[in-house]
Amino acid sequence: MDSPLLFPVRLGEREILVLDETKLPFEEVYIKVSNLDEALKVLKEMKTRALGQVLLFFYSCVLFTSNTSFDEIARLFKNTRPTFDFVGLGKILEAEVKKGKGIKEAVDNFVKSFDDRRRKRAEKLALLLPDPANILTICNVSGELLYLFQALKAKNKSSCFYVTETRPYLQGTRLTFWELRKNGICAKLICDNQAAVLFKEGKVNCVVVGSDRSTLKGDIVNKIGTYALARLANIFFVPFYALVQYPADVDVDSIEIEERNPQEVFAYIGEEYKDIEAIYPSFDITKAEFITERIDI
Amino acid sequence: MDSPLLFPVRLGEREILVLDETKLPFEEVYIKVSNLDEALKVLKEMKTRALGQVLLFFYSCVLFTSNTSFDEIARLFKNTRPTFDFVGLGKILEAEVKKGKGIKEAVDNFVKSFDDRRRKRAEKLALLLPDPANILTICNVSGELLYLFQALKAKNKSSCFYVTETRPYLQGTRLTFWELRKNGICAKLICDNQAAVLFKEGKVNCVVVGSDRSTLKGDIVNKIGTYALARLANIFFVPFYALVQYPADVDVDSIEIEERNPQEVFAYIGEEYKDIEAIYPSFDITKAEFITERIDI
Repeated sequence: MDSPLLFPVRLGEREILVLDETKLPFEEVYIKVSNLDEALKVLKEMKTRALGQVLLFFYSCVLFTSNTSFDEIARLFKNTRPTFDFVGLGKILEAEVKKGKGIKEAVDNFVKSFDDRRRKRAEKLALLLPDPANILTICNVSGELLYLFQALKAKNKSSCFYVTETRPYLQGTRLTFWELRKNGICAKLICDNQAAVLFKEGKVNCVVVGSDRSTLKGDIVNKIGTYALARLANIFFVPFYALVQYPADVDVDSIEIEERNPQEVFAYIGEEYKDIEAIYPSFDITKAEFITERIDI
Repeated sequence: MDSPLLFPVRLGEREILVLDETKLPFEEVYIKVSNLDEALKVLKEMKTRALGQVLLFFYSCVLFTSNTSFDEIARLFKNTRPTFDFVGLGKILEAEVKKGKGIKEAVDNFVKSFDDRRRKRAEKLALLLPDPANILTICNVSGELLYLFQALKAKNKSSCFYVTETRPYLQGTRLTFWELRKNGICAKLICDNQAAVLFKEGKVNCVVVGSDRSTLKGDIVNKIGTYALARLANIFFVPFYALVQYPADVDVDSIEIEERNPQEVFAYIGEEYKDIEAIYPSFDITKAEFITERIDI
């Protein structure tokens, strides 16, 4: 059981290798990133996101700076993808390095601990989910659903994942559905606008989402569409679980939501469409009151 | 102010001209339909739908049968698109013809009265909508939103349409957004999964949808995604209006929902994707309790 999405960004000798998520599921291609400009470019172009952007940031700190203050790199990353807290991430790394560790060692420890944490989250969530677990999910949580499947199986719970395609980037289709099926896990793909009918018909009995940001109050910021699922789950009394990490002591409404180019909404029609007026925030906010439980360790 | 979608199917001397809606907005192409098999083929391939399929049925009755019983044509149409009530439509036409009218005259009268009815519906709805009317809509109601815009304007109400792209066929993007913008009407395109955020932020203050079927009890069957909008509108206290026609005395749950080929969910990725397990009902059911008002005349 494996997915390149578990560690979508890897550190080479002098460069960073970034899995081009926009090419999946058709090609598994890695982009060689040799300097900070190239790192920002792959970030901007959504070649990587979620855990990938964290790894890209860390490895950029390892390779592309000679000092141990990561503020400048964090600021550039944040300018490119404002919703994610790269500045906070830089401070965590800085604190580790100040304890006397080398940057590379600090990063390696962080990555290992991140992987441990997500395995533990999967274990914890598996206890809460019903048997069979018919799980509605959105976007992609960097391979963590594979751990969830394994944890459920270890508890003799059967599972099936209902994957929303997650427009406009279709990460549900291209990443989650792909990695689940590749590993022989039951997965069914739906259009985003079908979720309400699945709730009504009782075809799903829980929702599991990741979170790009989370706060101490229990609110999350995640891929656009998450909020709709939370509200719908709520009216159908379906439990809604959010996998969270490193909750920050901030007001969720103060988090800047990245607005993407409206052209992207048309990207999959396959032709240039002129005269566009679209709105496309990448993320939305789901407040704690609509989240049954946040899964952290 | 005009849209080919107002009358997407036209009667020629010996053939029917069907606007190929799947080619819009890139090309405005008409398919020549010369016999019943060709009519069923364009129906199956979603070249036309909504009013287009009604006109296609009527004109098939005019050209492709020598008798005045339309049962057989209706049955074939219904086998192809089970959700729509072609059998009932055949009976309406049959009754008109029995009053002594020729088929062509009966059809012409029907089309004229249909157009009158939708203008009147637009007038009626325009009275109910707020000023400004920030209207969330889904799929395509065959040009009727142009009439609604005009009716609102006549009442000095300003309006803007928020159009969900309506996966997987993207009729919102390709048809509604296109016809509105072509006529200089304020229109903004969104992904289907953004609607909840628009509600939360108060960016839309009403929802207007069409209906493929409606019942005397007030329930409707419409494009997949309609039900989600209704439930979300409901929790945000946003009025939800359904344009209906010829409500039938049937139980809405007895209406067969057309299941389409799951491949279509992947159609806009632009490549063949093997090993697919998707679920794709074309329509969903919205019960009367979630509809603020049905607009009929």
